[in-house]
Amino acid sequence: MSLSKSAMTTTILEAKENRGTTWAAIAEATGLHEVYVTSACYGMNHLEGDQADKLATFLGLGPEVSQALQAFPHKTWDKTIPTDPVIYRFYEAINVYGDTMKALIHEKFGDGIMSAIDFTMDIDKVEDPKGDRVKITWNGKFLPYKSW
Amino acid sequence: MSLSKSAMTTTILEAKENRGTTWAAIAEATGLHEVYVTSACYGMNHLEGDQADKLATFLGLGPEVSQALQAFPHKTWDKTIPTDPVIYRFYEAINVYGDTMKALIHEKFGDGIMSAIDFTMDIDKVEDPKGDRVKITWNGKFLPYKSW
Amino acid sequence: MSLSKSAMTTTILEAKENRGTTWAAIAEATGLHEVYVTSACYGMNHLEGDQADKLATFLGLGPEVSQALQAFPHKTWDKTIPTDPVIYRFYEAINVYGDTMKALIHEKFGDGIMSAIDFTMDIDKVEDPKGDRVKITWNGKFLPYKSW
Amino acid sequence: MSLSKSAMTTTILEAKENRGTTWAAIAEATGLHEVYVTSACYGMNHLEGDQADKLATFLGLGPEVSQALQAFPHKTWDKTIPTDPVIYRFYEAINVYGDTMKALIHEKFGDGIMSAIDFTMDIDKVEDPKGDRVKITWNGKFLPYKSW
Amino acid sequence: MSLSKSAMTTTILEAKENRGTTWAAIAEATGLHEVYVTSACYGMNHLEGDQADKLATFLGLGPEVSQALQAFPHKTWDKTIPTDPVIYRFYEAINVYGDTMKALIHEKFGDGIMSAIDFTMDIDKVEDPKGDRVKITWNGKFLPYKSW
Amino acid sequence: MSLSKSAMTTTILEAKENRGTTWAAIAEATGLHEVYVTSACYGMNHLEGDQADKLATFLGLGPEVSQALQAFPHKTWDKTIPTDPVIYRFYEAINVYGDTMKALIHEKFGDGIMSAIDFTMDIDKVEDPKGDRVKITWNGKFLPYKSW
Amino acid sequence: MSLSKSAMTTTILEAKENRGTTWAAIAEATGLHEVYVTSACYGMNHLEGDQADKLATFLGLGPEVSQALQAFPHKTWDKTIPTDPVIYRFYEAINVYGDTMKALIHEKFGDGIMSAIDFTMDIDKVEDPKGDRVKITWNGKFLPYKSW
Amino acid sequence: MSLSKSAMTTTILEAKENRGTTWAAIAEATGLHEVYVTSACYGMNHLEGDQADKLATFLGLGPEVSQALQAFPHKTWDKTIPTDPVIYRFYEAINVYGDTMKALIHEKFGDGIMSAIDFTMDIDKVEDPKGDRVKITWNGKFLPYKSW
Amino acid sequence: MSLSKSAMTTTILEAKENRGTTWAAIAEATGLHEVYVTSACYGMNHLEGDQADKLATFLGLGPEVSQALQAFPHKTWDKTIPTDPVIYRFYEAINVYGDTMKALIHEKFGDGIMSAIDFTMDIDKVEDPKGDRVKITWNGKFLPYKSW
Amino acid sequence: MSLSKSAMTTTILEAKENRGTTWAAIAEATGLHEVYVTSACYGMNHLEGDQADKLATFLGLGPEVSQALQAFPHKTWDKTIPTDPVIYRFYEAINVYGDTMKALIHEKFGDGIMSAIDFTMDIDKVEDPKGDRVKITWNGKFLPYKSW
Repeated sequence: MSLSKSAMTTTILEAKENRGTTWAAIAEATGLHEVYVTSACYGMNHLEGDQADKLATFLGLGPEVSQALQAFPHKTWDKTIPTDPVIYRFYEAINVYGDTMKALIHEKFGDGIMSAIDFTMDIDKVEDPKGDRVKITWNGKFLPYKSW
Repeated sequence: MSLSKSAMTTTILEAKENRGTTWAAIAEATGLHEVYVTSACYGMNHLEGDQADKLATFLGLGPEVSQALQAFPHKTWDKTIPTDPVIYRFYEAINVYGDTMKALIHEKFGDGIMSAIDFTMDIDKVEDPKGDRVKITWNGKFLPYKSW
Repeated sequence: MSLSKSAMTTTILEAKENRGTTWAAIAEATGLHEVYVTSACYGMNHLEGDQADKLATFLGLGPEVSQALQAFPHKTWDKTIPTDPVIYRFYEAINVYGDTMKALIHEKFGDGIMSAIDFTMDIDKVEDPKGDRVKITWNGKFLPYKSW
Repeated sequence: MSLSKSAMTTTILEAKENRGTTWAAIAEATGLHEVYVTSACYGMNHLEGDQADKLATFLGLGPEVSQALQAFPHKTWDKTIPTDPVIYRFYEAINVYGDTMKALIHEKFGDGIMSAIDFTMDIDKVEDPKGDRVKITWNGKFLPYKSW
Repeated sequence: MSLSKSAMTTTILEAKENRGTTWAAIAEATGLHEVYVTSACYGMNHLEGDQADKLATFLGLGPEVSQALQAFPHKTWDKTIPTDPVIYRFYEAINVYGDTMKALIHEKFGDGIMSAIDFTMDIDKVEDPKGDRVKITWNGKFLPYKSW
Repeated sequence: MSLSKSAMTTTILEAKENRGTTWAAIAEATGLHEVYVTSACYGMNHLEGDQADKLATFLGLGPEVSQALQAFPHKTWDKTIPTDPVIYRFYEAINVYGDTMKALIHEKFGDGIMSAIDFTMDIDKVEDPKGDRVKITWNGKFLPYKSW
Repeated sequence: MSLSKSAMTTTILEAKENRGTTWAAIAEATGLHEVYVTSACYGMNHLEGDQADKLATFLGLGPEVSQALQAFPHKTWDKTIPTDPVIYRFYEAINVYGDTMKALIHEKFGDGIMSAIDFTMDIDKVEDPKGDRVKITWNGKFLPYKSW
Repeated sequence: MSLSKSAMTTTILEAKENRGTTWAAIAEATGLHEVYVTSACYGMNHLEGDQADKLATFLGLGPEVSQALQAFPHKTWDKTIPTDPVIYRFYEAINVYGDTMKALIHEKFGDGIMSAIDFTMDIDKVEDPKGDRVKITWNGKFLPYKSW
Repeated sequence: MSLSKSAMTTTILEAKENRGTTWAAIAEATGLHEVYVTSACYGMNHLEGDQADKLATFLGLGPEVSQALQAFPHKTWDKTIPTDPVIYRFYEAINVYGDTMKALIHEKFGDGIMSAIDFTMDIDKVEDPKGDRVKITWNGKFLPYKSW
Repeated sequence: MSLSKSAMTTTILEAKENRGTTWAAIAEATGLHEVYVTSACYGMNHLEGDQADKLATFLGLGPEVSQALQAFPHKTWDKTIPTDPVIYRFYEAINVYGDTMKALIHEKFGDGIMSAIDFTMDIDKVEDPKGDRVKITWNGKFLPYKSW
């Protein structure tokens, strides 16, 4: 029987914990960016066949995990407003700075949006004596509105 | 009578349009980052007295605009889920990648969050022959949870 | 003083009614598709300067209407579930057929979405002796998810 | 014991995946349009007895699947606003273009609606060197409001 | 300037009260059913030109009221769950008896719905010594789902 | 162990389907109106002991079904706005015609409501060459508001 | 021009405050129960003509207030969950004790409800050395569900 | 293993039904008011040890039921607006009469609220030839707001 | 005409800003705690006559402000989840620590609650070389649940 | 298999009850503050390895409980508005006093917030002959907004 995305995530997280490995190591083993591969393990992106096989092998998991990683996800979330403070702060930032981001994108590019599909992300640690800093970089294709 | 933040925003946007100026020019005139100064004009941050005065002067506006820019804002938004496609795509990204960002921040930093207060942002245009790209960089202090 | 998008819509609808003209005629006068130009008049898309001028001229309206048509819209709606039966039926269809559309797009194209930005629409009347039919055609660029 | 629509869907999707078949092949085997037959497999439409039998036979499934396909569905969905980006973009489009579609239907047909019951849909791939396009065609009977 | 549907309703209700007339009399003066004409006065249906003129004349109102009555309405309501007890009891009844109505319509007609567009309603008083009774009759065309 | 109302409904629907019987036949066997008896089987009304016994006997079910039918129901529904098109159309009608029904009830009866408790319903098929029609009749006691 | 219920309430509250009078005095002047007359002044019940005239006279207000008091109210409230602590505590009590009240009403009366229409209320002060107590008495007709 | 409050309620209701006993008899057996003891059985209040033991003994249930009755409840409900008509009518009454109850409490007591904690309730049957009446009496300590 | 609480708040905030005074000074002038007097100025508590007069006099405002301060407030808020980061953090804390606060109150006091009516609050600045700290102290009477 | 946070909480609460121990004793055994350790047991904070081991040992629980206590929590809650009266009163207080707390924090510290991350809490019992009082002290680092 095929594995649901959510059962797949549970299986992967448990194997990762038992092996004491990291997302960085999983990314290296699969040749993928750590953000992308983590999102696939959380069921929010799919992997190609060889990527999925490498990941399952690395964690000592069977072909049903590889198959589940290859399935195209139905992206869903339960909370319209996130509750966990890590995620809520991002939600807060896009609402506090939403009009600002829109205004500056329009000033720099014209009318259009940043794609959330043709899109990559980096998450970096910036060491700082006053307290380390989280640096998140979003990079998405600009999609212009065109009249027709 | 003092000016509300929302009346202030309307006044500034109208002056900016009439003068044909840009957020970049406003940022330069005030010596502030364009993201910060734009957010202040949208009523989501406050300016110090001299910054506010410079901004009002640059746009040919009176002291009541400077005073309104200095008021500490009550940050509020109407839509719990944004409707405008520019802003919705950010909302989508934080929900699609929420667990991923949380997992990687925890892996790199331990238990804690990225501050949305001790926080800066850049919005850049990356030229690309296949289509220009929007690059958004968030930089927030890591705040650890500590037992007590 | 500049005209808000919603005041602009009211002004245009009133002028259109007073002149007894049609969206088809407005489309012809501006050289734009009737769906696009109607959506711009409802404040959901912007027009280029010459298009906006033609439209204002055609309806006998002033430059403030042309200027409002050129502003980049903040797309917003009040009802998360539409109430008007015309629009509700579309809402119902995307929920009844949502999984189906997703499955068939994935079968034909792979993992990805139909863009709502690089997107056009036609609305046609198909005469039928058993009762005329409404034909709505959506045409959007396929945006693939790619691993990175 | 009879099979619920949701258990039916799970069974069919698993059989489809195990056999490596497609919605197109299922449509051909049953003599039905691929949109209709897919929606029936997702529990959103019912099939007639012979259609349901052909479908179950084609996938090597038993009579309880055929019976479940023939049951009249209770159409339901969990999210009032869809989260998956494929489906959300349709939701966005009907809100961005809702007033426009209503205005043009009224201009072409008079006061009334497009039926979501006497309704068919096509989903096509339009090849394009600048990127293939998804073409969705909705075709519903116009239902006029009449005074009485 | 044209009259909004809601200003039209206020004007009509005030004229009706001042003249001490009734919906029954308005229905008779316009040759329309009292339910239909009342719903038009509340902005939920439109009238044809001669019907609207008769209504405005009967209430001693001007042509802008006739014109507003002829406009195609955007049907909208504020409360997703009605609060007024008269209307809430109907809401309660459709939820208590929803599955029942669906089951019996399917048993008598097959898979399909009662149209809310090709639809009429009567509201009658049934005298009864134990307490008069309200009789509401809904009559809508059956619209079958058909496979394609 | 006693049977919950929802397990009771599942059991009854399965027995009804297996025996190939109808709501009309169940109504006849119990001497009750088909609307009432159907609503009891869906767990929205209770039956008296002898009525419940007759129903269980007719469907070949045991005393735990009779007992469950006699329990006083806790009336509950999951969706504040129904999604199934059959039921949604009723919801739409009470919102489109809510003010109208209220106005006409007040005109005919004075201030008060139609009871949803002292209440009966009929669902009839009206044959019509242009398409059969669903006729739903609600009959509820008028309850006046009285000052005190 | 006629007075809306909400303008009527504002007018009455202001007159009551200016005259330094009480609800008890208003009740006495009109011969009505203080709960009923207060609810009418808040726009939640209507008065008969002579009662309304007495009330307007007592407060020195004009005939438009009397007329507004006689209008049949559209009962509406803004908060689905009350925020004011006085009213929230009642909301809390009906949720904490809801199943209990239902169970005891069914035990004492059989299946049915307490009417909220044929309904009176008293609010009394019970002096108590340990702290005075609020006593609220609801008295509503029992309406039985009957099979048909 | 300890028993959850909701499993406890199911167990008690089943025992009560099997023994054919009543809330009145349970109240008598435990020496508690029927409202209080019923609310404890529905998991909305706790009992003291001897009260809980008496109740379990009376219904022939084990010590795990007594223990569950003694646990301090987490009071929770699923519906922000009740659906069952018995409970909805109370919800309606507190919204229709909310401002009235607040105004009269303030007139009789000053600024403050009725406690929902130091609170008792009676539910009585008042026989009446025109139809029996439900009488509900709430008695809560007045808690004044005091400046500090 | 009497002043609404919200107009009163606007008037007071403007006077406070124009005079360059502080909440601390207002508290001193009125002899009240700064938290209480601030909450009264925001319309969430009432003042006694002499307190209100002192406050109005101190800010150079008229008797209508004093009168508005004495009115018993209807406490209301617009956002069920606060958006401003200052207030949201409190909301987050009561949800993160809600079960904890409940468990420890029950352990220390037994079953019952902390009153939000018989309640005072302090807000203090604790200087700290690593960054000053906000100290908020809530002090509310314990209200026990008692069986009856 | 690893233990979920919610299974961990159930296990701990059951062990605590069976052993008849208290949060105070657990705090003492682990050398942590009672608020922090309770929140960790409710799954809202994590413990360090040795703290978690001590806690599990004290309650006679296995290493899987220690491991679950060390996992970084995903903080989540089900009710956007708490229903339990203990927690609701806190929710009410932050809404009644939200603007007040914001105003006084701004007056004492400038523009910024109280951190909910660098944050501690005390819950104390203050004995009082007029009724004991609950004293809750929140202590969070002030985080200033700074322009950039």
